[in-house]
Amino acid sequence: MKIAVVTIGDELLNGEVVDTNTALIARALRCEGYVIDQAITLPDQPQEIATTLQVLNKQGSAVLVSGGLGPTRDDLTARAAAQAFHLTLSLNELALRQIEAFFDKAGKPMPPGNEKQALIPHKAQVMENRCGTAPGFIITHNRCPLFFMPGVPHEMEAMLHQQVIPALRRQLAPTLFCGERVVKVFGLPESDIERQLPASLFPDSVALSFRLEYPLVLVKLNTSGKQESDLDDAERLVCERLRHHVVARGNQTLPQVVHQLLCNAEVTLSLAESCTGGMIATLLTDQAGSSAYLERGAVTYANSAKHDWLGIPNELLLKKGAVSAECARGMANGIRQRARTDYALAVTGIAGPGGGTAEKPCGTVFIALATPQGTDIRECHFSGDRAQVRTKTAYTALDWLRRTLSGD
Amino acid sequence: MKIAVVTIGDELLNGEVVDTNTALIARALRCEGYVIDQAITLPDQPQEIATTLQVLNKQGSAVLVSGGLGPTRDDLTARAAAQAFHLTLSLNELALRQIEAFFDKAGKPMPPGNEKQALIPHKAQVMENRCGTAPGFIITHNRCPLFFMPGVPHEMEAMLHQQVIPALRRQLAPTLFCGERVVKVFGLPESDIERQLPASLFPDSVALSFRLEYPLVLVKLNTSGKQESDLDDAERLVCERLRHHVVARGNQTLPQVVHQLLCNAEVTLSLAESCTGGMIATLLTDQAGSSAYLERGAVTYANSAKHDWLGIPNELLLKKGAVSAECARGMANGIRQRARTDYALAVTGIAGPGGGTAEKPCGTVFIALATPQGTDIRECHFSGDRAQVRTKTAYTALDWLRRTLSGD
Repeated sequence: MKIAVVTIGDELLNGEVVDTNTALIARALRCEGYVIDQAITLPDQPQEIATTLQVLNKQGSAVLVSGGLGPTRDDLTARAAAQAFHLTLSLNELALRQIEAFFDKAGKPMPPGNEKQALIPHKAQVMENRCGTAPGFIITHNRCPLFFMPGVPHEMEAMLHQQVIPALRRQLAPTLFCGERVVKVFGLPESDIERQLPASLFPDSVALSFRLEYPLVLVKLNTSGKQESDLDDAERLVCERLRHHVVARGNQTLPQVVHQLLCNAEVTLSLAESCTGGMIATLLTDQAGSSAYLERGAVTYANSAKHDWLGIPNELLLKKGAVSAECARGMANGIRQRARTDYALAVTGIAGPGGGTAEKPCGTVFIALATPQGTDIRECHFSGDRAQVRTKTAYTALDWLRRTLSGD
Repeated sequence: MKIAVVTIGDELLNGEVVDTNTALIARALRCEGYVIDQAITLPDQPQEIATTLQVLNKQGSAVLVSGGLGPTRDDLTARAAAQAFHLTLSLNELALRQIEAFFDKAGKPMPPGNEKQALIPHKAQVMENRCGTAPGFIITHNRCPLFFMPGVPHEMEAMLHQQVIPALRRQLAPTLFCGERVVKVFGLPESDIERQLPASLFPDSVALSFRLEYPLVLVKLNTSGKQESDLDDAERLVCERLRHHVVARGNQTLPQVVHQLLCNAEVTLSLAESCTGGMIATLLTDQAGSSAYLERGAVTYANSAKHDWLGIPNELLLKKGAVSAECARGMANGIRQRARTDYALAVTGIAGPGGGTAEKPCGTVFIALATPQGTDIRECHFSGDRAQVRTKTAYTALDWLRRTLSGD
């Protein structure tokens, strides 16, 4: 038996609302070991809904439907379901009592419009909606179940977990053991990563896939086998192959990893940012507890700020320019001395779109890392628009700090 | 001719990624007067993709496909398209040159893996991808076009506007006129906004909807009528009703509006951020040209930084604490004097989850705005998690500056 998800609502097809229910259902089913074979979004039109339900049911799919069970006249899913399987719509006593009970609990009288929500296809099994007024229902046709749920995400989610998944489990055995590993890679193009990870290296039970999560590439390992150990081996192999390009795993982010390394090392950090304009500081202070290591950060946009706060000599700014290895070095050393921290990161560059020159085009960035052992500089040339250059600069700086702290 | 959208990728059916491309395409088409009849999401499986494309094409639909054009093994859309319409996959010279040109521009050699992306169904018309390596293509079968676009949203969006929509317009007349206005509101709960904008105020030709885009509420005005003027009147009415709570319109963001006001006023700004940790600076420096007004920003996390850079007396920090009206005032005045700017914004607060006390719970924030006329303080109590408190703080500070500069 296949599994299909159908989301219903004009607002999903005119761009007003992003359909989050499909992903929500997919995540919940996946944790139960089920895979969704396709997802379809339809407008509030009974004929199209009915036809699609018939087709999916003929294909032998279990169908999870959300949306169109509301009290207003554009909620037509129940009617479409009845039409699809030649059932009559009848007022369901149980559903009606549940709707009335819901309004009682809210201390409100039931508006007449809501009685319509108790009109449910004959012989359908009612699913109680504990979070709203729209009851759900189950129709079984050709030995395949069709689950009808409300479209409001939290109402749908509650019904899914409390009633749909248990019912599905009774009729359909999970198809996969849902083990997964995610390895996050920075500084290697997707195609290079794939070349270093040929499928031949991995057992058939482990599926490899790649996803761009700018500026990272995610390597995902999934197994349909029962071997957790296959996944462990595969993850180890990926990390061995990509070595220091692996910046995080699982749900971790690079800023979280750097945050943890700084906390563990019990060292302090200061920042001097020009082209990133505070982005590095923002990424670190997103983490609760960052005050343990972050002494201060300087967003030194103007030369006067670089001079006053970081002690960059005006003649250096004149001779070499603010975007130069010398300036980056001065910024890192300057902030480290003034903040009296163990480490200091400094970035200066041209994010664009303006400000580029022949010898220093947009995307030219100098990063400096000052440590108790000394100060190093990197010259980078990033492609992309302003946002991409800024993001790559921030990640490159954080990754440099990560490697230094972890000896990676 | 109907219109169908097909999004492709295992990650969309296992719950890892919410499909935003469908809504993005729907919104763009809607503004051109097209309605989408259905949207389908499929896994990276050539057979299923091919079958679905055949069915949709037989139904006489124009099909917009996104995803599965990447350089890796699990990108199989081009192969599926060839299979569906019995075309051979061949190395497309034009596509290959575009991919090579993309890497040239980035100053990198083309990794061999990317050559695969130039394998395109024979006779298909190539669409250039100006933002990435995956070329798109158009197949026309049974006089119905199928547009294949990359899945990376910003690449897809650029190709959609630059090439797909113009091509679609040549083959299919728009079915409806669809004007839209968006009014962005800050500082009013959705329910208050709704109460101030009863449907009875607006002509039937204008549909009103509300959407939360944290921390803003978007008021959307749509018309399917031909009356552009109805929209203008409706938008004016919304702005009159919500007055200074309207922070931006259309595609504008609040940071963009503040950026523009600062540029127009030709004034300078400095920032002193504690709990927002550089977020305000980041939001402003996201805008190209922010160096015109932003002299510097201080992320003063430690008291030592507040003392050295902003001249906050240690006894004030001891007596009143870093999270206090007095400290906020001192921070704003201190940074304004040192940076010699016209304006200065300072924020200090407890973002949480830790650090709250009985009299200063998490979410307690003091914001100070120093202007040539003097310095004002605001005490705020925000609800929500760390990220929400930080975002609300940054937006409240920026909105305060917006109102001051615009006399709103």
